Amino acid sequence: MKKRLTIYGATIAVFIIFGAFLITPAYAQNSGNGMKPDDQKIQKQAQAIFKPLPQIMPAPEANPTTAEKVQLGKKLYYDPRLSLSGVISCNTCHNLATYGSDNVETSLGHNFQTGGRNAPTVLNAGTHLAQFWDGREPDLEAQAKGPVLNPLEMAMPDSELVIQRLNSIPEYREEFAVVFEGNEPVNYDNVANAIAAFERTLVTPSRFDDYLNGNADALTPEEKEGLGLFMSKDCTTCHNGVGVGGSMYQKFGVVKPYKNQEDLGRYTITNKEADKYVFKVPSLRNITRTYPYFHDGQVWDIKETVYIMGESQLGTQLSDEEVSKIVIFLDSMTGEIPQDALKLPVLPPSTTETSKPKI
Amino acid sequence: MKKRLTIYGATIAVFIIFGAFLITPAYAQNSGNGMKPDDQKIQKQAQAIFKPLPQIMPAPEANPTTAEKVQLGKKLYYDPRLSLSGVISCNTCHNLATYGSDNVETSLGHNFQTGGRNAPTVLNAGTHLAQFWDGREPDLEAQAKGPVLNPLEMAMPDSELVIQRLNSIPEYREEFAVVFEGNEPVNYDNVANAIAAFERTLVTPSRFDDYLNGNADALTPEEKEGLGLFMSKDCTTCHNGVGVGGSMYQKFGVVKPYKNQEDLGRYTITNKEADKYVFKVPSLRNITRTYPYFHDGQVWDIKETVYIMGESQLGTQLSDEEVSKIVIFLDSMTGEIPQDALKLPVLPPSTTETSKPKI
Repeated sequence: MKKRLTIYGATIAVFIIFGAFLITPAYAQNSGNGMKPDDQKIQKQAQAIFKPLPQIMPAPEANPTTAEKVQLGKKLYYDPRLSLSGVISCNTCHNLATYGSDNVETSLGHNFQTGGRNAPTVLNAGTHLAQFWDGREPDLEAQAKGPVLNPLEMAMPDSELVIQRLNSIPEYREEFAVVFEGNEPVNYDNVANAIAAFERTLVTPSRFDDYLNGNADALTPEEKEGLGLFMSKDCTTCHNGVGVGGSMYQKFGVVKPYKNQEDLGRYTITNKEADKYVFKVPSLRNITRTYPYFHDGQVWDIKETVYIMGESQLGTQLSDEEVSKIVIFLDSMTGEIPQDALKLPVLPPSTTETSKPKI
Repeated sequence: MKKRLTIYGATIAVFIIFGAFLITPAYAQNSGNGMKPDDQKIQKQAQAIFKPLPQIMPAPEANPTTAEKVQLGKKLYYDPRLSLSGVISCNTCHNLATYGSDNVETSLGHNFQTGGRNAPTVLNAGTHLAQFWDGREPDLEAQAKGPVLNPLEMAMPDSELVIQRLNSIPEYREEFAVVFEGNEPVNYDNVANAIAAFERTLVTPSRFDDYLNGNADALTPEEKEGLGLFMSKDCTTCHNGVGVGGSMYQKFGVVKPYKNQEDLGRYTITNKEADKYVFKVPSLRNITRTYPYFHDGQVWDIKETVYIMGESQLGTQLSDEEVSKIVIFLDSMTGEIPQDALKLPVLPPSTTETSKPKI
């Protein structure tokens, strides 16, 4: 981040120093950093459609982010005792070593059971309008409570067992008491609050953000070309805003149905005919690292994915060349995972009171 | 480490400054740091029986440790693509967030299958005379090759598939070529070499090491009392040396058979009658964090564990008080896990050539 800011600062400095010499008609056509009129147009258009990631993700009033809460949430995120078996943590399926996903079609949970949908990355997830593929939970707090109790995933029979385990560990008791108010700070809401606070730190700024912030040289000419195509082909109808996705729901198969029609999407939540095959539009940040693709994880190749999107959503047969250029742009959104999040916490030990793992 | 050295340095400085005033007969009985003659005797005895951990674990000539090799090994250690399912890494069962173990009776491998023995901690494992509970492999290099191909664990059908996956990832190809010589640097021996080099960095110095290095105040009076008991009760017959264990084989049940007689230990390797129920003596470093105990992981309480050891190995019925004191000492061997090892590596992405995970 510092490095990027330095580069950005240096660019501004160069601009100020040489600016005086450059205020000529020629400058308007070809700036000091080699920007052509088309480049400027693309950057302005991009700045209108997308938004750079904030340095810190805004928190809801009910769950303000504090440094202590983030550290507690990080421990819980990495703690396999949140699963019945004692071996599955949030990080098992949202592995920060692989960009917050697990790179398998559908995650392997308790007893290696598979769920029906691909695990979306946890990175930048707090920027989405809602959580899960079908948007059935409004925020990170509500999301965090789901997998722990899902019999296919972490398989805890009830939240009481989660609290029993945490309450049996003095270090956790102390930390919850420091972070949260109330007589019984170790409760399931607060488990979710702490995890959500940690997840709000998972912001991954990339060169694309530098570009949106005004540094036209942050992207290569090839990446800018891909970005131009991404916009001119109307991918931005759905993939826009800060997450380049994650801001709306859309039917998968607007023009041509997707090959797998098993999953009815939001219909399973709303029972509305119009919600059949409707899913939350995924964010494309770090997309080249969070394969395989789509809600069912059935497509592994990012190029095939882009092609399918063009065909099924836009009715456009993208050429191999166009697909390749768009993918080059997509890769420029691969960001930096915060260093502190990657540092494994040393977990507090269980006691003789802690309920044992079960399979 | 720095902090400990500073404290140690400060202690020496205090000793030098006040030493001149203290060279009296009284000093011999009660030194400037409050050491009593018994304390001195215990420390000397401990220094004769145990050895402090080295800062760097010595490497075999055939696999010298280099910084690049350690970083490559760390990536492989955390990479779940070393398993058929794509979700089990070395760190799944030897989780560095929980002192290199998984805190379950027996690990859950491919399809949640369980093995027959408790996963020993990877921390300081390079100090042991051999690897696995039965010592069937001589070193970390040979050990690393086992679980990857074990159908109950990571379940890769053969080493070729491991190499196929790694070879399909350009970043890995490049790193192997930098770290290893030869025409085909990405081979199964080198996978093991890199992982072993990383594991040799997993040294966890504790206050007990400071004590062995001469700082008598590094342990509390209670810990010293526990240490005294540990030695006077002859626990040190087996638990000695740098690992406080890990330096010899011993029958489990010298005096009284252990409750679980199913596992014949080294007999399964050697077929010698004398090797029935013989196991490698486990290291007691970080032992209070690496529950549950024994080769079968059947005992969760460290106190019960110490009691069983006294009864079955030494024919001694330790009192509750004695057991508690020994446990207080054992906890002083909980060490610091190296910071760099705890920092999750961001793993290089798969390509369309990479063979897919399977269950």
